[in-house]
Amino acid sequence: MDPQAKKTALRSINYGLYVLTAADGDEYAAAGVNWLSQASFEPPLVMVGIKADSDSHPIIERTGAFAVNVLGEEQLDVGKAFFRTTTVEGDTLNGFRFERGPQTGAPLLVDLAYWFECRVTDTVRRGDHTVFVAEVVDAGVRDENVVPLLLRSTGMNYGG
Amino acid sequence: MDPQAKKTALRSINYGLYVLTAADGDEYAAAGVNWLSQASFEPPLVMVGIKADSDSHPIIERTGAFAVNVLGEEQLDVGKAFFRTTTVEGDTLNGFRFERGPQTGAPLLVDLAYWFECRVTDTVRRGDHTVFVAEVVDAGVRDENVVPLLLRSTGMNYGG
Repeated sequence: MDPQAKKTALRSINYGLYVLTAADGDEYAAAGVNWLSQASFEPPLVMVGIKADSDSHPIIERTGAFAVNVLGEEQLDVGKAFFRTTTVEGDTLNGFRFERGPQTGAPLLVDLAYWFECRVTDTVRRGDHTVFVAEVVDAGVRDENVVPLLLRSTGMNYGG
Repeated sequence: MDPQAKKTALRSINYGLYVLTAADGDEYAAAGVNWLSQASFEPPLVMVGIKADSDSHPIIERTGAFAVNVLGEEQLDVGKAFFRTTTVEGDTLNGFRFERGPQTGAPLLVDLAYWFECRVTDTVRRGDHTVFVAEVVDAGVRDENVVPLLLRSTGMNYGG
């Protein structure tokens, strides 16, 4: 396999950008992720690839839960704030206010338009990222007019 | 959970559109899919959600292999041709010429700019779609200038 062709072909997949959050008691983790897709209508499942050595990975494994917060097209700056280690100050995560999700307690960023909470049903530990398949157990929309951010349009990518 | 909020929130995920193909001898299947993401850099893994009662599902299960062909932004018409049952005529699938992938024999549509072949490593049978996690074993780029199609921009969606 030609490594450059592999990289270019895999980067042709389209992604959004999301802040994935998890909490175990008062321990929090949040990370910018893009390897996310729905995986079933009934039950409503999603699948997400989470870096095996990331802060959020052990919390998801322990609690079996996480939330996904969807960045809007004008919110790349918010996303970038979650490419670093999570810091909690009062009711803010990396400087952005959150509330606890009603079903799982995972943090929901109040500035982001769409969110859903998930409970892990299946885990595939195979590569440098773990695949969590998870059922969507709650969801909310704060502003249905927000257009989700397209990773390709930022000039950034994570894949290949 | 509010069903409308669930639908709207899940439809905020960004997707491309792909023609997934599989072959078992001279039995072929091809389907338009969008629930696809990379899932690991090393080894290079992808994850895809495939409708459990689709033509391609049993072939992927039997052969443990499939190919992904990436639609460009001007190729929605090609994608729509794969929303119906697969028909093979000579070296065409649903009217579009293919060649067999070098590693798996899965059909590669020669009009599409990016492709990769995959071998299934893990299978999660949970919902109305099965999650296949698969290693990318070969890949190619026919025209690196093609911008991949964004499902949202077509006004269509599959999710929610």
